[in-house]
Amino acid sequence: MNKIITISREFGSGGREIGRRLAEEMKIAYYDQEIVAALIKCTQNLEDYIRYMEKERPLPLLPITTARTFGLSTNHAVTENLNFYMQESKIIREVAEKSDCVIVGRCADYVLRDMNPIRLFIYADMEYKIARCKAKGNDIENLFGSELQKKIVSIDKKRSRYYQFYTNQTWGKMEHYDLCINTSCYAQIKKIIPGLTALLDLI
Amino acid sequence: MNKIITISREFGSGGREIGRRLAEEMKIAYYDQEIVAALIKCTQNLEDYIRYMEKERPLPLLPITTARTFGLSTNHAVTENLNFYMQESKIIREVAEKSDCVIVGRCADYVLRDMNPIRLFIYADMEYKIARCKAKGNDIENLFGSELQKKIVSIDKKRSRYYQFYTNQTWGKMEHYDLCINTSCYAQIKKIIPGLTALLDLI
Repeated sequence: MNKIITISREFGSGGREIGRRLAEEMKIAYYDQEIVAALIKCTQNLEDYIRYMEKERPLPLLPITTARTFGLSTNHAVTENLNFYMQESKIIREVAEKSDCVIVGRCADYVLRDMNPIRLFIYADMEYKIARCKAKGNDIENLFGSELQKKIVSIDKKRSRYYQFYTNQTWGKMEHYDLCINTSCYAQIKKIIPGLTALLDLI
Repeated sequence: MNKIITISREFGSGGREIGRRLAEEMKIAYYDQEIVAALIKCTQNLEDYIRYMEKERPLPLLPITTARTFGLSTNHAVTENLNFYMQESKIIREVAEKSDCVIVGRCADYVLRDMNPIRLFIYADMEYKIARCKAKGNDIENLFGSELQKKIVSIDKKRSRYYQFYTNQTWGKMEHYDLCINTSCYAQIKKIIPGLTALLDLI
């Protein structure tokens, strides 16, 4: 079975960067939301894919990829979101079956639960996340102070609702992960426990 | 400032053993509930200590050591518990000021919060904890199956209530810790991410 590492992360905690660098370090594949979306669009003829999804969706796939059961929805937005989730889940399973990889976000810990991934959760204190967002200059760079904090909170709320909806599990609840790392404290951890292997190799 | 590592842990997760071995590995002092209790009894004249506590207690110490405020309690059991908590907290601060150390349990993460400890939380799946309790043959060795599970749950509930009471924080909530390790998955983590330094040194 392939080595699979899934990373769930709070916005601004640096989880995606850790995922990317971890994949580089281990010389394995890296996937995140953008890459999975691009794969859905680019690696095959979209119309073929849609036909395939139409043929198989929605109920036969749902028990594999979500913890919820649905009746046939008449709400177009819901159907569209469900379809996209199923496409994502299918791509995620395909890439995980193909090679060792790191996958950031997209409920990958849940989608791949039968493949025993290592499930990391990366989080940080708000102060650290605000400072990191400012330093990174990403698309919310024009927000400051309490507005930036509100934005960070709202992005994580969205992630939490998304995860809850598709997995019926609580996002960020320790028991669903194997290792949870607070990046705001990590410089101190490394200073106090050199290399950290001293601790971790004891287990 | 001394290097201080506090360990909070679910019963049966192996947290205490990790703490002891970590202290050995780092060649620093190790303290847990039994050792702190023994220190209170043995390292000084108990009567002197009680006089000292009587002189300073209860209100002047409370804002330092607990997040709660109390009126003067007329409940003897509550007063006794509070006194013991204050004695413990005082000893914990004394040993942490004296040298580098690992402290397991006793709300040490909260008691020493102004000393910037590294705060670890060690947890595990129920199946792992049951197997570990059986293998260890500790004082609940005569319980089996659901009875053993009930006991494990009840011990952790007690720990949770104790922590909540004295710190006004939720025990086992990720945000209060720097690193949370699921020991039941750790063998797999080591297999998939060799040494784990590859990951942790990237942060």
